Amino acid sequence: MKLSILGCYSATPRTLNNTTSQVLEINNHMFLIDCGEGTQVQLRKHKIKFNRIKHIFISHLHGDHFFGLVGLVSTFRLLTRETDLHIYGPKGIKEIITLQMKLADSWTNYRLIFHELNSKNSELIFEDDKVEVYTIPLNHRVYTNGFLFKEKEGLRKLKIHAVEDANINVAYYRKLTQGFDVENEDGITIKNETVTKPAEKPKSYAFCSDTMYKEDIIPIIRDTDVLYHESTFLEQHAHLAVKTKHSTAKEAASIAKQANIETLILGHYSTRYGDIEEFKTEAKTVFENVKLAEDGKTFEF
Amino acid sequence: MKLSILGCYSATPRTLNNTTSQVLEINNHMFLIDCGEGTQVQLRKHKIKFNRIKHIFISHLHGDHFFGLVGLVSTFRLLTRETDLHIYGPKGIKEIITLQMKLADSWTNYRLIFHELNSKNSELIFEDDKVEVYTIPLNHRVYTNGFLFKEKEGLRKLKIHAVEDANINVAYYRKLTQGFDVENEDGITIKNETVTKPAEKPKSYAFCSDTMYKEDIIPIIRDTDVLYHESTFLEQHAHLAVKTKHSTAKEAASIAKQANIETLILGHYSTRYGDIEEFKTEAKTVFENVKLAEDGKTFEF
Repeated sequence: MKLSILGCYSATPRTLNNTTSQVLEINNHMFLIDCGEGTQVQLRKHKIKFNRIKHIFISHLHGDHFFGLVGLVSTFRLLTRETDLHIYGPKGIKEIITLQMKLADSWTNYRLIFHELNSKNSELIFEDDKVEVYTIPLNHRVYTNGFLFKEKEGLRKLKIHAVEDANINVAYYRKLTQGFDVENEDGITIKNETVTKPAEKPKSYAFCSDTMYKEDIIPIIRDTDVLYHESTFLEQHAHLAVKTKHSTAKEAASIAKQANIETLILGHYSTRYGDIEEFKTEAKTVFENVKLAEDGKTFEF
Repeated sequence: MKLSILGCYSATPRTLNNTTSQVLEINNHMFLIDCGEGTQVQLRKHKIKFNRIKHIFISHLHGDHFFGLVGLVSTFRLLTRETDLHIYGPKGIKEIITLQMKLADSWTNYRLIFHELNSKNSELIFEDDKVEVYTIPLNHRVYTNGFLFKEKEGLRKLKIHAVEDANINVAYYRKLTQGFDVENEDGITIKNETVTKPAEKPKSYAFCSDTMYKEDIIPIIRDTDVLYHESTFLEQHAHLAVKTKHSTAKEAASIAKQANIETLILGHYSTRYGDIEEFKTEAKTVFENVKLAEDGKTFEF
């Protein structure tokens, strides 16, 4: 699982700070999460192949999280993309994009499929044989979702010498990886765990931005490996966090601790602060394993 | 008159190429012309004070000319702008911007005044005591206007010694700058041209992008000091220029020559070309005084 931070600052893009956008590589998928202005240039800088992006998840309709979307959709068209593109985001996102395509008389030559969200409960919005994606309802000034990306339980691994020694027909190997006991060539039942090893632990990533401190999300994200949680403010500006429905670094850490997260990544910093290290310092008073998102940084898990 | 090129490439923003946007300083105005994605960051790089921009002119609703507008409008709001902002552009531009403000529940705290255009004839769209702005109807795949910025005839300048020697009361000095003859303290009529010099020649700038070769614009832009004319293609791709309703460098030069322009600036290059010098070479076979727009370049006239 690999997470590339294209932008992690709040409010407005600046010469050296990009607004929110991330790429999550998980089980051969390349999910784009949020798409602030300039995301397409950031994707180029990261040398991410545009065609590998098939699913874009937009948390909410504040500009610093989606003003780059229409440009990306348009650039895909100019590059004669043929691959389907799925966009998940709040109700209204389809109207914004299609209105601009209509007025530019520039429709995509690829299939553009909108999945508009309006539920206040966590729901499964994407699933294939390896990955599931759920919404995480957040509490911000407008309708907002985080997203939970979960690998499914993988197949068990054969202990190859043990399988051979047990004289099992290869036709049964797949059943073994699925966890079943099987009969060997001599008619004897072979216990699955004697010839297989457990699958690797499935990985999971939760993206939570933008939101005020919201304990309701804890059951949804419990035991997730990696949590990105916004921390727009430091404690000294906790009153602004309340007023603008954002979180402080300490609040993000408290969510991580209560949800038994392994690694917390902070981001969505207000540009008022000179040194983002202070976010880490404050969060660490509550939760130990804190990392700081930075534009251009890549995390591997 | 000063022209800053924020971006001058066609189609899509890239790591080193920005899409169309320019700032024209003329008679203390700072006019923003087109606003591709990333324009707000380019404005910061150029250290252009956001508050000095009061008028934005959008040529047409293709993304490489206006996808940065909504972000700029939104950033102005976040920076608690109070100054009115006038936006001139094709019909539909108001709906695009207001739909996004509505869905973000983020209305501007400053007055946002849209001037939607749909005329096929050149019209005066801005005027104060020093400057006029006219549309230049262009021929592209969607409704498109160029813009002609013209300084008005300025006041005549006093020859200060001559005025004093002529024994004219200072109360008449303003009338003199306006070109009138006046009576001096001895009751003698003083011919204006004996005590004043002509005003500086008013400057003018025509912005023409995007358009195919269109001779109809010549009477509108005749004798303009500086013409920016798009040249998306070189001659070898003239067939693409026809197909996509763009111009070649040679066609831009032909317009400049026929309209008796002083300086031609080329831009809106397709990113297919490695070396933009070739645009100059081709244009110079038709018209001598050719300059190349480049991102970050400033021209003073």
